[in-house]
Amino acid sequence: MHVPVQAIDRDIWRDGVASEGTRLIPEETPLALTYNGGTYAVMMGTPQNLEDFAVGFSLDEGIITSVDDIKSLDVVRLDDGIELRMWLEQDNAARISERRRHIAGPTGCGICGIDSIAEAIRPAAIVPPGQTFTPEQIMAAMQTIAPLQAINIQTRAVHAAAFWSPSNGIGALREDVGRHNALDKLAGSLARSRTDASCGMVLLTSRVSVEMVQKTAAIGAPVMVAVSAPTALAVRTAEAAGITLIAIARSDGFEVFTHPGRITAHRAPEIVNVVA
Amino acid sequence: MHVPVQAIDRDIWRDGVASEGTRLIPEETPLALTYNGGTYAVMMGTPQNLEDFAVGFSLDEGIITSVDDIKSLDVVRLDDGIELRMWLEQDNAARISERRRHIAGPTGCGICGIDSIAEAIRPAAIVPPGQTFTPEQIMAAMQTIAPLQAINIQTRAVHAAAFWSPSNGIGALREDVGRHNALDKLAGSLARSRTDASCGMVLLTSRVSVEMVQKTAAIGAPVMVAVSAPTALAVRTAEAAGITLIAIARSDGFEVFTHPGRITAHRAPEIVNVVA
Repeated sequence: MHVPVQAIDRDIWRDGVASEGTRLIPEETPLALTYNGGTYAVMMGTPQNLEDFAVGFSLDEGIITSVDDIKSLDVVRLDDGIELRMWLEQDNAARISERRRHIAGPTGCGICGIDSIAEAIRPAAIVPPGQTFTPEQIMAAMQTIAPLQAINIQTRAVHAAAFWSPSNGIGALREDVGRHNALDKLAGSLARSRTDASCGMVLLTSRVSVEMVQKTAAIGAPVMVAVSAPTALAVRTAEAAGITLIAIARSDGFEVFTHPGRITAHRAPEIVNVVA
Repeated sequence: MHVPVQAIDRDIWRDGVASEGTRLIPEETPLALTYNGGTYAVMMGTPQNLEDFAVGFSLDEGIITSVDDIKSLDVVRLDDGIELRMWLEQDNAARISERRRHIAGPTGCGICGIDSIAEAIRPAAIVPPGQTFTPEQIMAAMQTIAPLQAINIQTRAVHAAAFWSPSNGIGALREDVGRHNALDKLAGSLARSRTDASCGMVLLTSRVSVEMVQKTAAIGAPVMVAVSAPTALAVRTAEAAGITLIAIARSDGFEVFTHPGRITAHRAPEIVNVVA
């Protein structure tokens, strides 16, 4: 329950004949996020980089606005799961109650379908202009991911989210059985290392649903690149947030769904001072 | 927002050169599930087979125990999403409040991390013994899925859940951008057609997380077959629920993680009455 990978015995059927063997599969652990003694959510995830997950989830959900809003964070290993126990300043705690009421209220609170839908697709943050990238940089960045996916190399069954910048290459890579969790972990890692995300790209091994765009906007990265396809709502949300959404990134190329101006076929020539 | 597939213009980069073109991508729509006037949840999903989704979600969440518990169900198309508006008998409505309190309470209600984790991994229903299947039946069943995935044929970006039985082949197949939603839709379809799931198998194009096992148990299908890998928690949950969990199902074979006794290399010979 508390390690990311498990070895499990199973039968293998090939050509109608069974044999036995062991396979490495990813663990999936209930992760309870608690604030000031109350549970906000239980997410199923990979038990690794849990401080990053707690910080990133709290930022992406809008519960905190800075890593400094968390007074204390303890990873408490229980029999059936892990509690990420956070204590916030009191004014942040008040924000949690407010936010929960907006997400979905219990029957009787009177929140209607329209209000709750509006909350689900609340506008994402607008990202900064950032800089331009060449197609070669984008393809090279995506090719650096696979060797760093330690859990996926063992299991072939978990997602990764990474941050790449021209100056540092892969600054952080996080893995999880859930693609949302992997991106939350990345967000937490960047926040804890005080990384300015406006200079780089978020890389994803997964598809792009609207929540992946909302989280990337919260991170403040102007470009996101994913292996698989986006949804139409993700495209509309990236358009509104000013994010360059690149998807279907494969070994032979990629597709750009929004704000293509950040991709230039060639670097701008350097300005050279010429003395006449 | 209200159709499952959208055509979208985007740039295609190949070998450092951009061209333009149109691609079909899946829509993703906020679906608000409301009971007796209050919102229970907003799920992001494919706007198709929504009555099935509403019924299956309600069953799988334990809000209703029979499709007959829903007095009325309306699909209400709003500007930014779709409300699945259900009215239940009053005693079912009381169950919703109770269930929500158990899932996760707002700060101040006092629910702790341990209680909420226990709720997240509550034991799945125990499935009936069902019958045995040959490896040839399992492989043939999985091969029938692809031609029926109408949205996926267009977009290559949505999941499917299907039900297969020896007597009827594929009885129902449902698609969604979310694998959980696809299985909820299948559950609703089976319930609405009063299909006895104990005689067949649930087929999935996705990975198997614990919730996929919990939903299959709620459906009452004794066998589930998935294209991709399970998590360790999914395996433990299938073991406890009595489900035969088959995964990594590819064209050359498959792997059996729990209760392999339902797979027989050959059909049992038919009993023939011989008069001596």
